[in-house]
Amino acid sequence: MTAEQNALRQADSNLDASLERLFAFLRIPSISTQTVHAHDCRAAAEWLMEKLSALGFSASVRETPGHPVVVARRDGPARAPHVLFYGHYDVQPVDPLALWETPPFEPQLVMDAEGVKQIRARGAADDKGQVMTFVEACRALIEVDGSLPVGVTFVIEGEEESGGENLLPFLKANAEELKADLALICDTGMLDAKTPAITTMLRGMVGEEVTISAADRDLHSGMFGNAARNPIQVLCDIISDLRDGATGRVTLAGFYEGVPEISAEVREQWRRIGPSDEAGLGSVGLRWPAGEVGYTALEQTWCRPSCEINGISGGYEEDGFKTVLPAKATAKISFRLVGDQDPDAIRAAFRAHVRARLPKDCKATFVGHGGSRASVVPQTLPQLQKALDALTAEWETPATVIGCGGSIPVVGEVKEALGLDTLLIGFGLDDDRIHSPNEKYNLVSFHKGIRSWVRVLKTLAK
Amino acid sequence: MTAEQNALRQADSNLDASLERLFAFLRIPSISTQTVHAHDCRAAAEWLMEKLSALGFSASVRETPGHPVVVARRDGPARAPHVLFYGHYDVQPVDPLALWETPPFEPQLVMDAEGVKQIRARGAADDKGQVMTFVEACRALIEVDGSLPVGVTFVIEGEEESGGENLLPFLKANAEELKADLALICDTGMLDAKTPAITTMLRGMVGEEVTISAADRDLHSGMFGNAARNPIQVLCDIISDLRDGATGRVTLAGFYEGVPEISAEVREQWRRIGPSDEAGLGSVGLRWPAGEVGYTALEQTWCRPSCEINGISGGYEEDGFKTVLPAKATAKISFRLVGDQDPDAIRAAFRAHVRARLPKDCKATFVGHGGSRASVVPQTLPQLQKALDALTAEWETPATVIGCGGSIPVVGEVKEALGLDTLLIGFGLDDDRIHSPNEKYNLVSFHKGIRSWVRVLKTLAK
Repeated sequence: MTAEQNALRQADSNLDASLERLFAFLRIPSISTQTVHAHDCRAAAEWLMEKLSALGFSASVRETPGHPVVVARRDGPARAPHVLFYGHYDVQPVDPLALWETPPFEPQLVMDAEGVKQIRARGAADDKGQVMTFVEACRALIEVDGSLPVGVTFVIEGEEESGGENLLPFLKANAEELKADLALICDTGMLDAKTPAITTMLRGMVGEEVTISAADRDLHSGMFGNAARNPIQVLCDIISDLRDGATGRVTLAGFYEGVPEISAEVREQWRRIGPSDEAGLGSVGLRWPAGEVGYTALEQTWCRPSCEINGISGGYEEDGFKTVLPAKATAKISFRLVGDQDPDAIRAAFRAHVRARLPKDCKATFVGHGGSRASVVPQTLPQLQKALDALTAEWETPATVIGCGGSIPVVGEVKEALGLDTLLIGFGLDDDRIHSPNEKYNLVSFHKGIRSWVRVLKTLAK
Repeated sequence: MTAEQNALRQADSNLDASLERLFAFLRIPSISTQTVHAHDCRAAAEWLMEKLSALGFSASVRETPGHPVVVARRDGPARAPHVLFYGHYDVQPVDPLALWETPPFEPQLVMDAEGVKQIRARGAADDKGQVMTFVEACRALIEVDGSLPVGVTFVIEGEEESGGENLLPFLKANAEELKADLALICDTGMLDAKTPAITTMLRGMVGEEVTISAADRDLHSGMFGNAARNPIQVLCDIISDLRDGATGRVTLAGFYEGVPEISAEVREQWRRIGPSDEAGLGSVGLRWPAGEVGYTALEQTWCRPSCEINGISGGYEEDGFKTVLPAKATAKISFRLVGDQDPDAIRAAFRAHVRARLPKDCKATFVGHGGSRASVVPQTLPQLQKALDALTAEWETPATVIGCGGSIPVVGEVKEALGLDTLLIGFGLDDDRIHSPNEKYNLVSFHKGIRSWVRVLKTLAK
């Protein structure tokens, strides 16, 4: 039997005890956004620190202006690579409490209608259960081999669900100590319950708020309609011009600079394994992809940039009718970025787009609402293929790279502060109800998650 | 001295007494929209009925489901034409009371910084002062001649400022009694303090509310942006398509059917006497006409149809930013109509415009908010030129026909119920502050208004 098989067997025999440890972690109501739970956040950090210390990590609870960060380090063999594992011990609030079938901080193993065993508790999937897959994998390896195949540094923060403004400064301040070759994060999902996945594409974002104003007061649209510039009309013209109606492409100058074309291979893989447009959009009452012509809904959200109008307001918005010609109108607009798209350049291009379309008598004011680059793991990253192979071996289904339409800011922060690429490997499922009542994590996700990390850490050592 | 000159002289010598009567009328706080003033509305109606009875009119206060209507009739010579004079005795509320320099129902003769004498009180211009110009003209004529040159029926209502839903049924129910050859209304303004005017064009209106919906719930714009149709974007595209950017023309199919081209003569007159774009738009901080290319701001509001967006809303409209992709978006849109434009056809064309631009996965719902035709006095109406000549003679400045961007529903109601064309002859000025604190009516407007009506009634008899 190989050393890897021994470690996997150890993980299997540990499972009941692993679950007990996870349940103990889940019982701590570490809701970071509620000050009444500040001591619970610290308790969760200390619990984790003690568990990692007991495994031979040099572990400590480190202060920040907010909730503390757990840092724990155990070196691997000489010349073995070193990985930085990020996770978070804080959880979302539990409201509405009445909708929970069991108390959110009394974890239970329950069985769903299809006979699937689930760990139900707040934080089961996001992110305590996922963090513990990695901890328990380390345990199995250490128990069998007496050592880890690679060096490991844990960075487990407590403010992921509440703004998390202290992490980047913390990473920067401790960059020397946190040096590594690769970052690993376990806070994402699989493609489906059978198909493991590594999220290699996270979109970045630029948020902009624009207000168009014209007359110095609201006017009567009968008395002034036609003659006085209508800011709502101007705003609609500007927004309408943001997308080409025929191709669905965003029209900002230079918008597609740095947007990589998805490879035929990945595309083919996604089309084979991913949900169809009908299934994916069907879940929200839609059917037809609305963005760039020639891309599936999955491709449009995973690997193509977008421009979305998140809000618009102007004039009379209440019941009934009022013939006002308003003095101003406002829209909130976000751009989701992929590849090497530059948030600053896109913000500038948007503002230029608006200014170029401003008729006489109008002015535009802007408020920026954040900007972040996309996070992309290069397909050529050597550890990527190794990790995919390890996952494929564990799940006996070909692992796939997937995208994510949203953003996970820590990936960019780890890149910025520490210069590290990140492999996002997670075992969550779409129906885990994270942030909602009755959050759960499948027992299979937990068990095979542990086994997956055993294989990944072993293969990263090679 | 001619009979007309005698009547004018009589009006002059009556002026102090005329003012006293107007002040008595103004002291009655007949605010129709406030139920606490219901008895004041009735008192104003009775005051007027008594004054007209004393002048030999057969006058009565007539009940409606709301405030009463004063009807008073005095025939003219056999075969003389009969005119119906419409006005209203009700007034707007006075809030904010603190901004009044003198109490709103204690009328005063005050002098402004330029030495212009003004009657200050709520209702001075809208509409008690204007109504009394006609009453006092009748008085002068009756006192001098013992009779009126034309038959006159007064219809003075008390709900013009509060919805006025009872007038049309009242006119219809009493159509036989109210038969006449022409309607006269004194509730509009002059072109400027020197130039008398008859308003011959009032725009009609079609109000529409449209809601575009797509997904069956609000979505996360990161997770769905691009793939899921964005109703705000769709709405903006639809609105942007409502106007041709190059010409400023409304693009609805058949929109300009029934829109008369203004005559070169009237246009020349308006350009000579009307406010420049700079002056007209400058009063609200603008300068450039925003509608159809080739028309001045005055022309765009007086004689051209318009499409205005009166309100728009969708998604996140509060402070800050939220990356929502909303399930729906709504706009309120009004069309101002001129000439023979058909409100029903325009409503249908708008809905067809929306439906033709609905992408897959979207639906549109509509709520109609009223529709009325434009009111136009034909340039060929024989009484129009007579009245213009009379005004020119009184003011010693050529009288002009003007338009009004807004709507005065009673003009359409008089046409619908009684089949009458209306001459809108009024002596108000733009700075009369109607509906606002310190409403005023220039003493010259009152005095020469009385004299103008003497001349108009005389000339209509010819």
